[in-house]
Amino acid sequence: MPRSPAAVLNAIHLDRHPGPRYRQLVCAVRDAILDGRLRPQARLPPSRELAVQLDLARNTIITAYELLQAEGYITSRVGAGSFVTADMPQRPPVPARRPRPEAGPGLSKRGRWHLDFERSPGPASPRIFTPGIPDLRSFPVDVWRRLLSRSWRQAGRQLLQPSDRAGWLPLRRAIAAHIGPARGVRCTPDQVMLVTSSRQAVYLAATVLADPGDEAWIEDPAYIDARSSLLAAGLSLVPVRVDGQGLDVERGIARAPKARLAVVTPSNHYPLGVTLSLARRLRLLEWARQAKAWIIEDDYDGEYRYTGRPLTALQGLDDDDRVIYVGSFSKTMFPTLRIAFLVCPEALIDAVHAARRPIDGPPATASQGALADFIEAGFFAAHVKQMRALYAERQAALVQKLEAAFGGALGIEGQQAGIHLLARLPRAVSDTGLVDAIADPGVRPVPLSRYVLEGRGAGGLVLGYGNSDIRELTRGVTALKRAWDAVRMA
Amino acid sequence: MPRSPAAVLNAIHLDRHPGPRYRQLVCAVRDAILDGRLRPQARLPPSRELAVQLDLARNTIITAYELLQAEGYITSRVGAGSFVTADMPQRPPVPARRPRPEAGPGLSKRGRWHLDFERSPGPASPRIFTPGIPDLRSFPVDVWRRLLSRSWRQAGRQLLQPSDRAGWLPLRRAIAAHIGPARGVRCTPDQVMLVTSSRQAVYLAATVLADPGDEAWIEDPAYIDARSSLLAAGLSLVPVRVDGQGLDVERGIARAPKARLAVVTPSNHYPLGVTLSLARRLRLLEWARQAKAWIIEDDYDGEYRYTGRPLTALQGLDDDDRVIYVGSFSKTMFPTLRIAFLVCPEALIDAVHAARRPIDGPPATASQGALADFIEAGFFAAHVKQMRALYAERQAALVQKLEAAFGGALGIEGQQAGIHLLARLPRAVSDTGLVDAIADPGVRPVPLSRYVLEGRGAGGLVLGYGNSDIRELTRGVTALKRAWDAVRMA
Repeated sequence: MPRSPAAVLNAIHLDRHPGPRYRQLVCAVRDAILDGRLRPQARLPPSRELAVQLDLARNTIITAYELLQAEGYITSRVGAGSFVTADMPQRPPVPARRPRPEAGPGLSKRGRWHLDFERSPGPASPRIFTPGIPDLRSFPVDVWRRLLSRSWRQAGRQLLQPSDRAGWLPLRRAIAAHIGPARGVRCTPDQVMLVTSSRQAVYLAATVLADPGDEAWIEDPAYIDARSSLLAAGLSLVPVRVDGQGLDVERGIARAPKARLAVVTPSNHYPLGVTLSLARRLRLLEWARQAKAWIIEDDYDGEYRYTGRPLTALQGLDDDDRVIYVGSFSKTMFPTLRIAFLVCPEALIDAVHAARRPIDGPPATASQGALADFIEAGFFAAHVKQMRALYAERQAALVQKLEAAFGGALGIEGQQAGIHLLARLPRAVSDTGLVDAIADPGVRPVPLSRYVLEGRGAGGLVLGYGNSDIRELTRGVTALKRAWDAVRMA
Repeated sequence: MPRSPAAVLNAIHLDRHPGPRYRQLVCAVRDAILDGRLRPQARLPPSRELAVQLDLARNTIITAYELLQAEGYITSRVGAGSFVTADMPQRPPVPARRPRPEAGPGLSKRGRWHLDFERSPGPASPRIFTPGIPDLRSFPVDVWRRLLSRSWRQAGRQLLQPSDRAGWLPLRRAIAAHIGPARGVRCTPDQVMLVTSSRQAVYLAATVLADPGDEAWIEDPAYIDARSSLLAAGLSLVPVRVDGQGLDVERGIARAPKARLAVVTPSNHYPLGVTLSLARRLRLLEWARQAKAWIIEDDYDGEYRYTGRPLTALQGLDDDDRVIYVGSFSKTMFPTLRIAFLVCPEALIDAVHAARRPIDGPPATASQGALADFIEAGFFAAHVKQMRALYAERQAALVQKLEAAFGGALGIEGQQAGIHLLARLPRAVSDTGLVDAIADPGVRPVPLSRYVLEGRGAGGLVLGYGNSDIRELTRGVTALKRAWDAVRMA
């Protein structure tokens, strides 16, 4: 025989549910109704009675009853009390101990693809030799905090308003004023659009300029994020090998003359650290002009160059509006700032904005005012200059330690620029095998082969030195040498 | 006869290029070389001579020559001077006054589609009656600034580090602790993933759970961003009509029983303002369980409810891990904060992270610490409570003014919750026509028909009242009445 509603309610457990008492009571009564412990049309005890029974304030019971009524579980009739709703649908019983679904069941095919793709690349949290992380210990965090505070004091409520879809105008002005002189990029602030990351910029440009199945040249080897962004945009990748002059444009033309776009890192190829030669630059622009193709220039660390001044961006050479320039503050400021930008011909701006709509809005304003001030007041240039000196010193130390440990066994490349080196391995040594053989869990270079699409040359190690001081780099080289010895012995 | 290099250089215009003098000189010389004004192998004047000629410091000339050499334009031979590189590729002449390309040429098909889709919806900057914007004048911007500053003082350098891909743990904890009691969502902080916006959450969930061409139920009418996110994810939309009980689940089952997912706004349908009834909720969950389909619950303004307590989220009713809950701070805090979150079954977390990689990284940390403190210190609950009272007052004033102006001619709906009302129009009146007839440019409701996919009922106006004070609402009603009179007279 079913128990009386009062008995059922007396036995409920409030603490199984989160939140204030009235919400716990709602959940408990709801469960009792859906389980069938409280039958349709059962009369609930009056609030006063239940309050005494459960030792709760009467107001708590009243609030809970109101909410249960609003949500349709109970109905109240004046003078008669509260009843479980007559046509209450039954919830089918759920097995008490279902096995948790594995990651996988229920995923779409592409969901599974994303999962597999993501699992392949390097470590999640930065360790010694992780490429692409700047020195975060040197960032002037106090200056930054003061500028943040000042910009919120001055612009305050303006920063709350959705106003400029392209991003905070003073920041776009500061960026345009900076990349002209520093990178030779020709643009107005109206051509600058703030996004959250280089990869978002590449994804948006690829979406707007190419359709699924269209061909895109990609450097081989290439930055993994560029690959994943182009693939997510549905493009068909055409790997084009990179040699000592940078991207082999003739090879690209031979393989895919009608490609819709090419993604390149002309200032400092990632990860080989070569510069795209002038002849290749002009050839690439010429191809784009004739093929009506587009070039996405990812200038991910163009500010860090150790021999002479930073090279002029490819965009500055382009007279035909075929280049979309992508810059980021992840390596010059800090990665969690999440402010990057693209510079594109004005004719494309509206479409890029439109393409962003389904996946994101304009980026958060929180740091935009502070970053504009940081650039305009000269902190940015000073910080980059200081970091350039620091990285040059670290690079020199790393090279010296590698040479001391390995002699001529490793071929060191990519010293002109950036915050990583490439150490070429002899053909007999597998780069993944060598990385796997590193015993120190705090040391993790990335095998060159991870960035390779088709090419089958010697392996190598990509050694980031941005975020490691000289003591850590020493530890890294020691760990590397031990792994090397172990692998060579085996 | 070609002019001498000295004569060519004497005639160059430095000011056409941005940046410091050496950079201007580099660009000018580069242009002269690429134009053919300076021929291959032409000998450039010595730096000392050119410095006098152009009235520049000699160091400027030396820096420029070094850069030109590094970029491949000139070669220097010791004791002989600097020469234009012998095998300099010629840049083909570009017509001097090319017409700027229109927005369109060069765009991909989908680029054009995005552009068209984006052009259709409402105004870009908020005006009177623009839906979805909270009251920004009441946001405690000083408290916010102090919390921002404090979080940067306390967490400082930690906020620079890429650490937690799901977002700042204290914020995920604060969110999990808040939505339990406030919205009846059952989750751990590990199930909370921070993203930049609800639309990003919908896009990611759709990507991971459905493949291109798969069917998805969408409410009809529906939020435009939900539509655009699902379309961008390549899904085939199945419009399911919404009646007084919310989404008509039986109709959805009849039309697309095997749909992979359903996107719903159960707490307060956008834009009709109805609540999904309990019977429909249970039926929807039952369908998802049997069809192994997924439900994306967009709880875009669940905190603003004027009759009784906020209703329990659908997620809290789900015992089978089929619901992905999406929340956002755009309406409870401010839209430019760009912090939203999704709560998903743990088995999906890795895939959602992986799917984000090509389009975005983890969101900026700048405001995450401050938001965690804002919630934990009780400012958030206090602010929402205060805003609820303010919106209730505004809504009452708006209803009263509409009734005074229109009598019973408009059917007012959606008063229970949210920050917008729906005013139903008589069948004879076109909602887009009425909106177009509004003369006051500061007043812009959205026609209901803009949200409709298939349904062909009477039109209506979606009247946002979040960001307008009573004086502005009065102005809005006056403008609306004038348009109404004009349309009825015509």
